[in-house]
Amino acid sequence: MQTAFKPYKKEFDYSYAFGAFPTVELVRARPRDVVRVLVSAAWREEGGLNLADLCRQNGVELEYNDRLVARLSPKENCFVIGVFRKYGCALDRAAPQIALDNPGNMGNLGTIIRTMLGFSVKDLAIIGGGADILDPKVVRASMGAIFRINFGCYDSIERYCADCGGRDLYPFMLGGAHSLDRLSPRGDKPYTLIFGNEATGLDERYKSVGQSVVIRHAGAIDSLNLSVAVGIALYQFSKT
Amino acid sequence: MQTAFKPYKKEFDYSYAFGAFPTVELVRARPRDVVRVLVSAAWREEGGLNLADLCRQNGVELEYNDRLVARLSPKENCFVIGVFRKYGCALDRAAPQIALDNPGNMGNLGTIIRTMLGFSVKDLAIIGGGADILDPKVVRASMGAIFRINFGCYDSIERYCADCGGRDLYPFMLGGAHSLDRLSPRGDKPYTLIFGNEATGLDERYKSVGQSVVIRHAGAIDSLNLSVAVGIALYQFSKT
Repeated sequence: MQTAFKPYKKEFDYSYAFGAFPTVELVRARPRDVVRVLVSAAWREEGGLNLADLCRQNGVELEYNDRLVARLSPKENCFVIGVFRKYGCALDRAAPQIALDNPGNMGNLGTIIRTMLGFSVKDLAIIGGGADILDPKVVRASMGAIFRINFGCYDSIERYCADCGGRDLYPFMLGGAHSLDRLSPRGDKPYTLIFGNEATGLDERYKSVGQSVVIRHAGAIDSLNLSVAVGIALYQFSKT
Repeated sequence: MQTAFKPYKKEFDYSYAFGAFPTVELVRARPRDVVRVLVSAAWREEGGLNLADLCRQNGVELEYNDRLVARLSPKENCFVIGVFRKYGCALDRAAPQIALDNPGNMGNLGTIIRTMLGFSVKDLAIIGGGADILDPKVVRASMGAIFRINFGCYDSIERYCADCGGRDLYPFMLGGAHSLDRLSPRGDKPYTLIFGNEATGLDERYKSVGQSVVIRHAGAIDSLNLSVAVGIALYQFSKT
């Protein structure tokens, strides 16, 4: 791919990992999708990452290009950029999954992906299609964890169910029928934990999708932060 | 207080709540600390907040001032600003508390405060002194929850213990001795859950402070996001 790389737009067929740590994760996890690694003269290896060695071992071109790094970077202190081709994945139907209906915040999405990897849940379905999951903001907030999970996008929960059927579905809702701390997952089928948009949550029709769950909290707040809620759910499900 | 309000700086003796929702929380929870509410002409009451009524009932001046709102706002779509005097609090020694050692990210700090309120833990100790807890970024990320909790700042954990002694202390560390899901809090004394900085965590000497705890996660990530970790800990402790 010989391209004049430009500041990221959703319609590009490539994207960026900004920073040494996410770039190392990119080269480690998906070496075939790396187009090039760009570094600026100010860059120094640190924290035992050995990016240069890693690139050499994986046949990845490492290019010093101060101007391009400066032009593409969102922040001044970014000295490393991993350029990669956008790719698709297949979800593992036998594995536990997270489904997010219309996630709105790139930072939350990245944090959720990192938390998923922390609890060894490696399959993510995006329902409703809006999110640009390979956006550099998601990559950065995930600290490169995105390169180690599978993701799939579905127009609707019905399409998701048709494709990944035979699962126990747990939509998380303020009006959920079951309190998370009293829930006993059946455990004979793989599960999906489903969460709505930060502002609007899941709509009422999700009450008829599987077993709806609520994380009980005090009335002093409207709802928990989405990435906090997903973290609590993953913690609880990983225990049981 | 008659002041030419300026874009926020840490050394100011006043701060800002940006947005209608945090401003409503400010006026509801701390009416005596409100200096003024600034709104722009584009502002409309929404979502049943009734900010104008609330100001009237609490003797708070509501001033239309487009230029000032535009000059102080971090983002273009902010139409309401609550100006408030910075205040101090006393921690409730009989209540459960969260302690954060050198928190570095204002957004995380705000999310943590909101999560605390969600689990009815209303006392927050900041150890190490660096954080400007009434910074508008914290206020905004907390969605105004900060006005409903108590906070106190301490130079060191020793100072905190001297002031809030007789508590069960649980420092959360990657090398913690006890796994959170197997922990049985004694419950005869109030507890404090202690968390370190986003990048560095708690240093080793915290191992001798109370009962150290780890939230087990897969080795594929270095650590959980701080606000996710606090959320999981609050969830677990609120159950037991």
